[in-house]
Amino acid sequence: MAASKTLRIGLIPGDGIGREVIPAGRRILEALPSSLGLKFSFVNLDAGFDTFKTTGKALPEKTVETLQKECDGALFGAVSSPSTPTPGYSSPIVALRKRLALYANVRPVKTVKKNPSPVDLVIVRENTEDLYVKEEKTIETSDGKVAEAIKRISEKASWNIASMAGEIALRRQRVRESGAESIHKAPLVTITHKSNVLSQTDGLFRSTARSALAQQKYKSVGVEEQIVDSMVYKLFRQPAAYDVIVAPNLYGDILSDGAAALVGSLGLVPSANVGEGFAIGEPCHGSAPDIEGKGIANPIATLRSVGLMLEFLGEEQAAAKIYSAVDGNLEEGRLLSPDMGGQAKTDEVVEDVLRRL
Amino acid sequence: MAASKTLRIGLIPGDGIGREVIPAGRRILEALPSSLGLKFSFVNLDAGFDTFKTTGKALPEKTVETLQKECDGALFGAVSSPSTPTPGYSSPIVALRKRLALYANVRPVKTVKKNPSPVDLVIVRENTEDLYVKEEKTIETSDGKVAEAIKRISEKASWNIASMAGEIALRRQRVRESGAESIHKAPLVTITHKSNVLSQTDGLFRSTARSALAQQKYKSVGVEEQIVDSMVYKLFRQPAAYDVIVAPNLYGDILSDGAAALVGSLGLVPSANVGEGFAIGEPCHGSAPDIEGKGIANPIATLRSVGLMLEFLGEEQAAAKIYSAVDGNLEEGRLLSPDMGGQAKTDEVVEDVLRRL
Ligand SMILES: CC(C)[C@H](C(=O)O)[C@@H](O)C(=O)O
Ligand SMILES: CC(C)[C@H](C(=O)O)[C@@H](O)C(=O)O
Repeated sequence: MAASKTLRIGLIPGDGIGREVIPAGRRILEALPSSLGLKFSFVNLDAGFDTFKTTGKALPEKTVETLQKECDGALFGAVSSPSTPTPGYSSPIVALRKRLALYANVRPVKTVKKNPSPVDLVIVRENTEDLYVKEEKTIETSDGKVAEAIKRISEKASWNIASMAGEIALRRQRVRESGAESIHKAPLVTITHKSNVLSQTDGLFRSTARSALAQQKYKSVGVEEQIVDSMVYKLFRQPAAYDVIVAPNLYGDILSDGAAALVGSLGLVPSANVGEGFAIGEPCHGSAPDIEGKGIANPIATLRSVGLMLEFLGEEQAAAKIYSAVDGNLEEGRLLSPDMGGQAKTDEVVEDVLRRL
Repeated sequence: MAASKTLRIGLIPGDGIGREVIPAGRRILEALPSSLGLKFSFVNLDAGFDTFKTTGKALPEKTVETLQKECDGALFGAVSSPSTPTPGYSSPIVALRKRLALYANVRPVKTVKKNPSPVDLVIVRENTEDLYVKEEKTIETSDGKVAEAIKRISEKASWNIASMAGEIALRRQRVRESGAESIHKAPLVTITHKSNVLSQTDGLFRSTARSALAQQKYKSVGVEEQIVDSMVYKLFRQPAAYDVIVAPNLYGDILSDGAAALVGSLGLVPSANVGEGFAIGEPCHGSAPDIEGKGIANPIATLRSVGLMLEFLGEEQAAAKIYSAVDGNLEEGRLLSPDMGGQAKTDEVVEDVLRRL
């Protein structure tokens, strides 16, 4: 048996159903077979709109510091957006991505076996810049208010995210070569941009991504491009054609929700916010106020996000165990949450997955 | 019979299949029944990448001037984007929208009767600002290049586009009340934005659109909001829920390609670029170099764009004739172009539609 290693995980449930799915994430970590040689310790951390309402800060400094000083990784649930403009409030997950330099947001979207319309792709989203720098100003003119925001694209971040896309394409290919079933035969990265309008910003993203993927180590990876509007169209018309899609921050945000629609529910789609040696798993869904407190939130996106977090912390074997337990639950289709057309409660889905570990 | 009126129409085929579909647009105008009391004269105008290659300008000044001085409306085909960065080249349709103050881009997406998954929505896209102001700069830093683009949102343009959305919602309701079949019962405008990240720019769009739609004249119109990523997700999961979607320029661009995927082919989706007293009809598809010259381009998007142009020039009766002839062709499904799974040539589809006028 491998020597045991302990990972310290920050748990940031946030608002709404975040509080119902993050406990599921903790449970699956605790239930991993001891033969993997992994132990976990946990620390509960605050962030979100409720935290803002009580403390005036959506992302307390203590949360950032604890993650930086104590933790190996974290799980983030979801946060509510205020329904009316709220001065001083600003999304804590966007801030966290920047503060911890989590430069990549990795979002795999995959149908389980035997699907008539198979999808197996991953969106690799730049996670720190683009319009998310949130540098805005508003001026008053004789014609009314005019507001401006900066979209910033750097060569460095574009290079890093495209290299990450190349690595992920190679890793996926290795998993396929080790015998995993897949709809893809060869690794492919699709660069998404709008350089026909934004020749400098998206043009820089495009040319830098091309150069990064032209590195010798990615020579087995196919590279193509899609303009973002056309990418959304093709994503729906021929999703099976895509393996790894790399995109600037905002297009990645939009494309990953679009891809989620292909697999039937946002409740299935995980993400990882990845930096050097640190990863935060985060389900792609929101805080879902409509179903909050009913115990029926789909935990699958979170369980898969736990797998992703482990994968990016180098624990691929533990990740694979989680993925296959989740796939088992979905393939059997007996215990599904209401968003999937089933009647199972969050806890029943979690227990079914744990049984399959 | 109504007194005869002559409209002068600029024809701008552009590149690729633009040259195959714009003649179809001319043909349907010439074939309109004389009982409508409309006559047309035409002027051929240049723009596009081929024009750029021969003259150094993608949008010759003569094209703009002729449209301004002589024309009542125009039809624009499609333009090719250079496949490598081309200094000095800039999209002529984006320039035309700004030069002629065509502040709204209206994109209806509709399935024909008897569709198991019906869609009947229209995307009303702001057409002059947002990132399309194309104010970009690039600086060299010790860490490589950094490029920035301005996203500009004004109260005035947001007010105008939201008011246009309100008008369109009312007009659609009138058409329904006059007995047209529809999946909708009441008018609804959905405001799309990303104000949870862009609180000033998209926040201004959101609040201004809310105010514009709160005007007494729109009191029968329902108003709701969707964050753009969630909008793409919902568009695919429950498209029948949407009537009129109003969005800033870039989101509108992306959403309209997404909506096109719902009806099976971009080759079906029309648009109109609309200003005060002027409209340019423009199919949503591109120049499609892969099928150029084969005579198999789908003319439906252009024929419907002719209808839209006429609608915004106040000729609603002529527009209705075109829409119903097109619907007749699609409902029968005998003469369809290859993108629709058929084998008909462009000309055969056009002739079938003309027979139904
Ligand atoms: C909540 C919001 C700020 C966030 C984003 O836009 O990144 C969300 O949509 C996501 O995709 O994680
Ligand atoms: C060709 C391109 C500049 C254009 C746009 O982005 O507006 C096109 O995608 C469209 O939708 O008309």
